[in-house]
Amino acid sequence: MSLEHVCIIGSGNWGSAIAKIIGNNVHKYPQQFSPTVRQWVFEEMIDGKKLTDIINNDHENVKYLKGVPLPVNVVAVPDLVDACKDATLVIFVLPHQFVRGICEKMKGSLSPGARAISLIKGLEITPSGTRLFSEEISRILDIPCAALSGANIADEVARERFCESTIGCESVEDGQVWHRVFHTDYFRINVIKDYTGVQLCGALKNIVAVGAGFSDGLGLGSNTKAAIIRLGLMEMRKFGQTFFGDMVQNETFFESCGTADLITTCSGGRNRKVAEAFVKTGKPIAQLETELLNGQKLQGTLTAQEVHEFLTGKDMVPEFPLFDTVYRIVYEGASPEAIVRDV
Amino acid sequence: MSLEHVCIIGSGNWGSAIAKIIGNNVHKYPQQFSPTVRQWVFEEMIDGKKLTDIINNDHENVKYLKGVPLPVNVVAVPDLVDACKDATLVIFVLPHQFVRGICEKMKGSLSPGARAISLIKGLEITPSGTRLFSEEISRILDIPCAALSGANIADEVARERFCESTIGCESVEDGQVWHRVFHTDYFRINVIKDYTGVQLCGALKNIVAVGAGFSDGLGLGSNTKAAIIRLGLMEMRKFGQTFFGDMVQNETFFESCGTADLITTCSGGRNRKVAEAFVKTGKPIAQLETELLNGQKLQGTLTAQEVHEFLTGKDMVPEFPLFDTVYRIVYEGASPEAIVRDV
Repeated sequence: MSLEHVCIIGSGNWGSAIAKIIGNNVHKYPQQFSPTVRQWVFEEMIDGKKLTDIINNDHENVKYLKGVPLPVNVVAVPDLVDACKDATLVIFVLPHQFVRGICEKMKGSLSPGARAISLIKGLEITPSGTRLFSEEISRILDIPCAALSGANIADEVARERFCESTIGCESVEDGQVWHRVFHTDYFRINVIKDYTGVQLCGALKNIVAVGAGFSDGLGLGSNTKAAIIRLGLMEMRKFGQTFFGDMVQNETFFESCGTADLITTCSGGRNRKVAEAFVKTGKPIAQLETELLNGQKLQGTLTAQEVHEFLTGKDMVPEFPLFDTVYRIVYEGASPEAIVRDV
Repeated sequence: MSLEHVCIIGSGNWGSAIAKIIGNNVHKYPQQFSPTVRQWVFEEMIDGKKLTDIINNDHENVKYLKGVPLPVNVVAVPDLVDACKDATLVIFVLPHQFVRGICEKMKGSLSPGARAISLIKGLEITPSGTRLFSEEISRILDIPCAALSGANIADEVARERFCESTIGCESVEDGQVWHRVFHTDYFRINVIKDYTGVQLCGALKNIVAVGAGFSDGLGLGSNTKAAIIRLGLMEMRKFGQTFFGDMVQNETFFESCGTADLITTCSGGRNRKVAEAFVKTGKPIAQLETELLNGQKLQGTLTAQEVHEFLTGKDMVPEFPLFDTVYRIVYEGASPEAIVRDV
């Protein structure tokens, strides 16, 4: 049996936390995995030094995961083609806007029989349709692609705080391989087949978190917030089953990628926080993004808008009252109280 | 069609909040419900006045729901038999230890064809078996009994804060009647058939909340807490389906009585709070009950013990690692860290 060669594409906060796990895990199965884990790192200069050199010499990603030692067998590679050359297992953990360009550059470099997994949150929703990032990766590279998502704040995972995550993978055999790549005592993996549901949850939860933030902003208490979370979970499921059919399983919403991630996102998280401030201050979202997020775009409001356009095209807006209400509060000046009146 | 006569048995915090809803709701359907709602109130003297007189004159339960006006058609009755005479719809909302005695006294007073609903949290778990309070009521009074449970903190409901609740009722026809009795814009009712699951959730959630409190006490963050909540939800479901079979539906755990109530209970709530203090202070639970709960018994630890004895009798303790771990931390001196190590 030839060894699996693991390559991680991406080196941000989450990519670094995952690199720590994978670097350790490959040693547990030396007959299955090559001991070297290559990580493609977008080269940056940090105090006159290359980030890849810092990672390879000091075994720490000082920019994105400061203070957490990385396993010495995680090797940072600045060139994408060098990084993924002959890889058999490719982990995509980078911002979604780079996926297509990166995949195009990787074409022809992977080992035959390579498989991928997407840790990218979100999915593309346009008026004409939806597209999962796992499917985009699969399409461009012509390899199978699974998905991983769960209640996984990167810094907590890096500090080995117990949590769970869900892998959606059609092939049972590949699912077992991915389980070995990711599972630890503190990062517990459930493998299911429903890769679609896994990715949908990661995207749609952010709309619900905006709704939960409105409730917090109005000071409505924990009954109300729990009701919004539950109604949101039900709309996430309905969205999946309406537009993806039987591929999306009820059970997925009980997994870490479903209920658990939604709970975390609605209790902490930037979407909740900015939405709370939106109600309390009356400032527009764009201004709050500047003030609270250093100008980064809020995911939940963006997704609410994309979902709204998509549902408008299908003439199905009223079928998803919570998603619609979040949209109307953010973009059409509806009163925040609508979050408990119109859902 | 003869009118339904509604009687509420109990007048605590939750009973009073519910009396407010029901008193208003009966007016919406004057051809179905008698306009008078009788409420059995355990007589107490408040500043030299009878509590029933205060409720009937001032329309406020000054002891258990101060500051919330009650509808004038809610009539407090100190005598149990007077209160329930010829009632057709009986709402049980009183501490569980009184259920049997009260039901025995009510025998023969209700209208033929009467139906009941239990708002009593918890169920009886002994080494030899489990018993739902709805079934006890049904058995003693020989009438059908539904159950209501959800993410419903009484004070928030009394202040008309939006939330949801779940009614489990085998008969579709009776379910529609109960929906009319309880549903409002701010207290939204879903009726399902699974009255067993509804009641199981209300009891078992408290064990999970103790586990969530341990996680808070250890400062483990929101990923970990979300994982404990999710694992707990799965053990609640497994418990139901193992010991009650197909009666307990997957879908029930997506209802307000399931996910939503669990979220509320694990975010606020006394079980979570005392468990957090248990870890932080190292004091025994009994001492914390004295200090934090005025000597009242904590439900979650008691239920953990009952479930442990029940599972021991079935030789199935290891099948429920979260319930078991909570038990061992509270009663056997296991380290609180077991909550993330042994589940």
